[in-house]
Formats: sequence, structure tokens, C-alpha cells
Amino acid sequence: MSDKQQQKPILYSYWRSSCAWRVRIALAIKGIEYDYKTVNLLSQEELNAPEFVKINPAKRVPALVVNNGEAITESLAIVEYLEDIHPENSLFPKDPVKRAYAREIALHITSGMQPLQNSSVLKFLNTKEAGSGAKWAQHWLTVGFGALEQLLAKHSGKYCVGDEVTVADLCIPSIVYNANRFNIDLTPFPNVKRIDSNLAILPEFIAAIPDNQPDAGLNA
Amino acid sequence: MSDKQQQKPILYSYWRSSCAWRVRIALAIKGIEYDYKTVNLLSQEELNAPEFVKINPAKRVPALVVNNGEAITESLAIVEYLEDIHPENSLFPKDPVKRAYAREIALHITSGMQPLQNSSVLKFLNTKEAGSGAKWAQHWLTVGFGALEQLLAKHSGKYCVGDEVTVADLCIPSIVYNANRFNIDLTPFPNVKRIDSNLAILPEFIAAIPDNQPDAGLNA
Repeated sequence: MSDKQQQKPILYSYWRSSCAWRVRIALAIKGIEYDYKTVNLLSQEELNAPEFVKINPAKRVPALVVNNGEAITESLAIVEYLEDIHPENSLFPKDPVKRAYAREIALHITSGMQPLQNSSVLKFLNTKEAGSGAKWAQHWLTVGFGALEQLLAKHSGKYCVGDEVTVADLCIPSIVYNANRFNIDLTPFPNVKRIDSNLAILPEFIAAIPDNQPDAGLNA
Repeated sequence: MSDKQQQKPILYSYWRSSCAWRVRIALAIKGIEYDYKTVNLLSQEELNAPEFVKINPAKRVPALVVNNGEAITESLAIVEYLEDIHPENSLFPKDPVKRAYAREIALHITSGMQPLQNSSVLKFLNTKEAGSGAKWAQHWLTVGFGALEQLLAKHSGKYCVGDEVTVADLCIPSIVYNANRFNIDLTPFPNVKRIDSNLAILPEFIAAIPDNQPDAGLNA
């Protein structure tokens, strides 16, 4: 173990954040101990605090602070970093094409689906027209789940890509949680439902759910 | 060279696609020969053609077809794949934290900025209210460039992360192109402007610009 790994990293998180959730699963799978620091995403004061803006200029969670002050943001960049420094319990298939499929599914969710229904976008829409955020989220989630279902039909086994948990699977619970939040009927997406159920019983996934975080219930 | 690399990959692209643009730069830097196949993003017929939906269920470009039929989508998944099979002319710093910064900047642009102003989103908005797409794009681009500028202030040298071209730099030209398209004043973002200028003179970046593609001018 290198010197770098001997300091506990600090995860800036919020229990309901989709993006922090993915990183919490990765940390659990890798067995990495960390300190949990809550950022209240509903507090403009906390988001705009100079100390936090220095850590993440985009004013979002997650951020992982490592090596006594180096802040890494963007969930998939953090997951790749964790893989680089802790290759054990790998989240990336060995075969380059399968590895590409795992990243493709992760990116389809994190770039193609999640950004269109994150809280700042919905807030912006609701300010212009009350209630328009939910309709917007429903539209883009449904479009995105349609493509996700087809990707999973091509590549999945027990999990998103074959029978091993990969980076793609880290992105499933939070997008399904959002689907439920916006009353999306998942019946037309049987592979999504099946894989979400398979993941939901794994201890590392259970450890990472919002309700099991130190700040669970904040603003609820 | 393995058998897999002996077949020319096929890039499904559209000259003005931000996402295909990134992959074209990576292919040029890696010196990989490929066949260029145009997908007319303004043709519903082409996007919904069963042959294309099979390649990319999300009905977007880019897609890279390798090994006689394996289709990889999502620009950053393709770039990571190209790095995996062609590690020479690396687009990823050796140091794990710097590598994380390069991915973080790439993801900030591709997940945090681009999805909110891609063509399907703007079309959806304009259908509801003529002209609303441009205002929306301007709002989110400005927010995104603010954070990008601060990330670059922390990590950049001649390019986005230090003095070597990385995956982060692949994402700069297209987001600056979009800024110009929506009349965003880049004066408040001097690092973005500076790095874009440094990249604009590199032959591999010149080869990848929209005007130098076989389908340049389509729908113009």
C-alpha cells in the first residue's frame, strides 16, 4: 500500500444525490474507508461557501478529497480513480470491448439521462412554470430508459454487462429511484427492472442507499 | 498488432456533432485509419432506420463499429476504448490524480454542459415555445463555462491538465463552437479561450473540425 492510500479520503455527499450514490457503491465494493461530509444541496449558503466552491467549482456532489487536499469531482472520474488506485474488486471488465460497453451504459445514464432531470434543471423549469419540471423529467427519463433497455438487451447477463458487477451497475439504482420518484412505469423495461432487483440484494449496494447515509432524512 | 486492429473501424458521425468531433480528434491523435459513415442527424428516417438503431439504440452519433460488428457508443467510452487498444500517444496522464482531473474536466463538459444544449433538447423546447431553445442553451452554457474556467485555473498548463493533450482537451473545441453559435461572450473565461487557441493550431485538431469532414455543409 502506498503512502497515498493511508489517508482516509473525504467524500462530500448528500444522501439523495444520484451522483454521490454511485461513488458510495464503488467505495463499498472496493472496501475503502472514508469520512462522510454532508453538503446540503438545498442550501444555497452551503453550495456557495468559498470552502466548498474551492473543492467543486460546479457546486455539486460528489467530490472526493484525497492525499490531504486534492479534490476530484464528477462521479465517473472518481470511480475510474478508485479503480486506478485500488484495482482489486475491479469494476471494469478485462476485455476492451466489454469494458467499453460498461462505460457506454454508465455514460448513457450519467450523460444521456441524469443531467436532464437533476435538481438545478428542474428548479429552473419550475420557476418559469410551476409543475413543468416533473413533466420534463418524465419525458426525458422515458426516452432514456427506452435506449437503456435496448443496450441491456444486447449486453446484460445477471448484471448490466455479463455476470459481473461493473461501473454500469453503479448507475442503475439511482436512475431507477428517480424513475419511481417521477412515477415512470418500468414495465416496458424488463431488463432494467431485473438488473435493479439483482443489485438491490448485494450488501455493498444496500450500504450505499440514501436511507443508510448519515444525513438520511435531511430536508425530507 | 493484434488481429482485432487489422480491420478498419467505422465511425458513424455527423460533421457538426460535438460528440463525434471528440472521437475524430482521438482517432487523429492515435493515427487510426477509419471509414467515415455519415448519419444525417436532421433526418428522422436515418435516425430511426432499424440498421442504425441496432448500432445505437439512443439514435445518436458517434458510434464506432469495431471487430466486424461490435458497436461502441458514447464518445468518452469510445475514447477510453481507443486508449485501451492503442496506448501510444496517450490521452490520459500517468499520475492517477492528474488522470482523474482530465476525466473530470471531460465529464464536466460532456455530462454537465453538452446534454443540456444538444439538438433534441433544443428542438423539444422550440416546439413548445419558439426561440426558447437558444435562451435555455445560453443560460446553461454560461453556468457551465463558469465552473469550467475555475477547473482550468486549478489544473491547466498549456492545455487543460498540464502541458500535454489529454481527453479533456478533446472536449474543448466543440463546446467553444457551441458557445459561439449561441453568442456567448467568452471574455470572462480566459483559460477556456487560451486553451482553445493552443489546441486550434494542432494538425490533429484541424483534421477533426466540422468543415474538414466528408459531409461538411450537409443541411447548412
